[in-house]
Amino acid sequence: MIPDEDFVQIQGVPGPTKEEVRCLVMCKARIASNDTVVDVGCGSGGLTLESARKARKVIALDKNPEALELTRQNLQKHGLTPKVQLVEGDALEVLEGIESFDTFLVGGSSGDLPFIIKQGYEKLNKHGRIVVTSILLETRVEAVDTLKELGMTPDVVEVTIAKGKITERGTMMLGRNPITIISAVK
Amino acid sequence: MIPDEDFVQIQGVPGPTKEEVRCLVMCKARIASNDTVVDVGCGSGGLTLESARKARKVIALDKNPEALELTRQNLQKHGLTPKVQLVEGDALEVLEGIESFDTFLVGGSSGDLPFIIKQGYEKLNKHGRIVVTSILLETRVEAVDTLKELGMTPDVVEVTIAKGKITERGTMMLGRNPITIISAVK
Amino acid sequence: MIPDEDFVQIQGVPGPTKEEVRCLVMCKARIASNDTVVDVGCGSGGLTLESARKARKVIALDKNPEALELTRQNLQKHGLTPKVQLVEGDALEVLEGIESFDTFLVGGSSGDLPFIIKQGYEKLNKHGRIVVTSILLETRVEAVDTLKELGMTPDVVEVTIAKGKITERGTMMLGRNPITIISAVK
Amino acid sequence: MIPDEDFVQIQGVPGPTKEEVRCLVMCKARIASNDTVVDVGCGSGGLTLESARKARKVIALDKNPEALELTRQNLQKHGLTPKVQLVEGDALEVLEGIESFDTFLVGGSSGDLPFIIKQGYEKLNKHGRIVVTSILLETRVEAVDTLKELGMTPDVVEVTIAKGKITERGTMMLGRNPITIISAVK
Ligand SMILES: Nc1ncnc2c1ncn2[C@@H]1O[C@H](CSCC[C@H](N)C(=O)O)[C@@H](O)[C@H]1O
Ligand SMILES: Nc1ncnc2c1ncn2[C@@H]1O[C@H](CSCC[C@H](N)C(=O)O)[C@@H](O)[C@H]1O
Ligand SMILES: Nc1ncnc2c1ncn2[C@@H]1O[C@H](CSCC[C@H](N)C(=O)O)[C@@H](O)[C@H]1O
Ligand SMILES: Nc1ncnc2c1ncn2[C@@H]1O[C@H](CSCC[C@H](N)C(=O)O)[C@@H](O)[C@H]1O
Repeated sequence: MIPDEDFVQIQGVPGPTKEEVRCLVMCKARIASNDTVVDVGCGSGGLTLESARKARKVIALDKNPEALELTRQNLQKHGLTPKVQLVEGDALEVLEGIESFDTFLVGGSSGDLPFIIKQGYEKLNKHGRIVVTSILLETRVEAVDTLKELGMTPDVVEVTIAKGKITERGTMMLGRNPITIISAVK
Repeated sequence: MIPDEDFVQIQGVPGPTKEEVRCLVMCKARIASNDTVVDVGCGSGGLTLESARKARKVIALDKNPEALELTRQNLQKHGLTPKVQLVEGDALEVLEGIESFDTFLVGGSSGDLPFIIKQGYEKLNKHGRIVVTSILLETRVEAVDTLKELGMTPDVVEVTIAKGKITERGTMMLGRNPITIISAVK
Repeated sequence: MIPDEDFVQIQGVPGPTKEEVRCLVMCKARIASNDTVVDVGCGSGGLTLESARKARKVIALDKNPEALELTRQNLQKHGLTPKVQLVEGDALEVLEGIESFDTFLVGGSSGDLPFIIKQGYEKLNKHGRIVVTSILLETRVEAVDTLKELGMTPDVVEVTIAKGKITERGTMMLGRNPITIISAVK
Repeated sequence: MIPDEDFVQIQGVPGPTKEEVRCLVMCKARIASNDTVVDVGCGSGGLTLESARKARKVIALDKNPEALELTRQNLQKHGLTPKVQLVEGDALEVLEGIESFDTFLVGGSSGDLPFIIKQGYEKLNKHGRIVVTSILLETRVEAVDTLKELGMTPDVVEVTIAKGKITERGTMMLGRNPITIISAVK
């Protein structure tokens, strides 16, 4: 994974998703070199960049123009620009106009997660994967319910990471916010 | 437990230990109404105040005079002053001069945890309890090793708490630093 | 708290809630000596017994007669029988017939959590507390949503505990299932 | 990653390391296609197989002949046999006779972790990586201390995973034992 500190960050745009969580999302996504990935809510580009290192093509969506600009900068910094198409807009509106894809990452949804998952599912190729990262109690359940409704069996992993900070006094364990990764195969 | 926000806090003095951790420390300490408690590293007074609500007497030590002053303020704010004796100094030096006690809480040690535990053990009454809270990888092991060396069987509980923050978008889970509580009975 | 191993246990009845979780539930419940507590889904009696040590009266409900019998045995073993009334039946049906109370503990709900919370709320005295323990992703959200709907502000604590097992090779950390405690004051 | 259930397992041999932890270990190990990996304590072959999918060559050590036989079976099942050399013996004794390598994975040590790390360090190529997985309180500290002693800066990640089990009643969160991954670059 790209180290957290190697991402340009700006205030007002969340991310990048921490290294360890990006790592687990990538494992669950099982992206193959010929795949097309859609990343809904690309934020700082954390998952967009990791996907771009593995996939043939990534389409990164965000409704916040600053997030797209930041993702663009991070892509450039890591030489990954050519593989990625940046699309500004609410996933609710722009997903419909997008080609079919093999992997559907959802990292932001603004209250419309069930609908976004359903729309992504429509465009998802057979055997394609959906991977949702959730930091809210509510969206975890929405993701599980929607994937079940679509006939899939969700894999649910709640991840709690503490990182050791090496200090003079010893190794201080610093907690991170828990994240739940919900994934399924079509 | 006293709500976290009901403690006066100042920069430079750690604590109070969060409500949920104070709760668990108090459970492990099993303080009876006739007990004398020693709190090493009283900091903001988090554990001193909770102990004072249960014990006959609490002796609160800290090597930082600001911590003692802050503990004094918090005791006053909650009407618990009469039960508590405040002692300034390094536990290494002042423990020796203190009367015997029933409960030994250790929340700070500055690299001398094994020695502090051993000194406390000397003054601990039979059936008394030692409860160490540790935020460093190293002190967890020091506590376990020292308690075993003294012939006790340590109870080790690693606690990871996430608190839900109610927001407009939903319940955001905010991680806390993990804390390990190591306790034993003489 | 009563040590886990001091509860009689039988197959087919869940519980007792582990010591550390009982401790946190009791802290959130803030039971006073004159209070009446209702424990919905008493199971092995874990929370019933702890409540009985603090309250004036406890009403323990379970729809499983074996759970009531087990709770009865555990009450007897710990000399807490006189304070507790055991009621067999589905909370949905029996709550209505019960006197008003100060503390409402919910540890089992069989899919009817929102309705059970609402019924409990009706009988809950002013300034009374509701404390729900949840092991399912779904019931956490149901509890939060229902408490918000009733105009309360839920306190949400997700607790992950690992216990150290002292072995010859060292202290092996054994994970427990995470539990979420959702509580609120009327 | 290879799904947990796709490994042959036998009683008496630990592993495979769970999918999510294998994923994080692989991320920390950053194995390149031309690398040689040494896996100390290959157990069921969990990390051996994952390494074999990325590296040029893997040398898998275990002092338990049953572990080597099981790893052999798992390699065969997944068509990864050609890349892996199996070596029976205590790491303490066999490491010395082994060629230099780029990645040093340690998943078992039987009380000799500091010495094993030091021996591995000797054979580790410049810019090579050491990744230790630890389930004991004590070995976490031994790993951190030894890596610091060798002049490296350890990255310490404590990972707590709960997996959702989809049941009729809802998504039950099942806790796993926490694991700490300590890694460093030469
Ligand atoms: N309905 C929607 N359509 C498109 N983008 C959305 C959206 N709802 C939220 N978002 C975006 O989702 C993002 C979530 S933060 C994502 C961080 C990202 N995974 C990283 O690693 O950097 C925000 O930038 C937000 O603007
Ligand atoms: N050797 C020692 N002797 C006395 N106090 C010590 C000490 N080493 C550290 N301390 C004190 O230990 C404290 C740790 S912070 C403790 C917080 C406290 N439990 C609360 O709830 O508020 C610090 O105030 C520090 O000054
Ligand atoms: N609707 C309902 N009404 C009454 N009891 C219920 C219920 N739904 C589930 N239960 C009961 O809830 C219990 C949950 S297990 C509770 C364990 C308990 N807190 C302890 O510490 O021992 C089970 O015994 C189950 O029979
Ligand atoms: N000093 C030593 N030398 C070699 N092997 C050792 C050792 N100490 C412990 N082991 C081995 O370390 C293994 C730890 S279990 C490892 C599981 C493995 N990572 C997997 O994913 O399958 C055991 O098989 C044990 O026999």
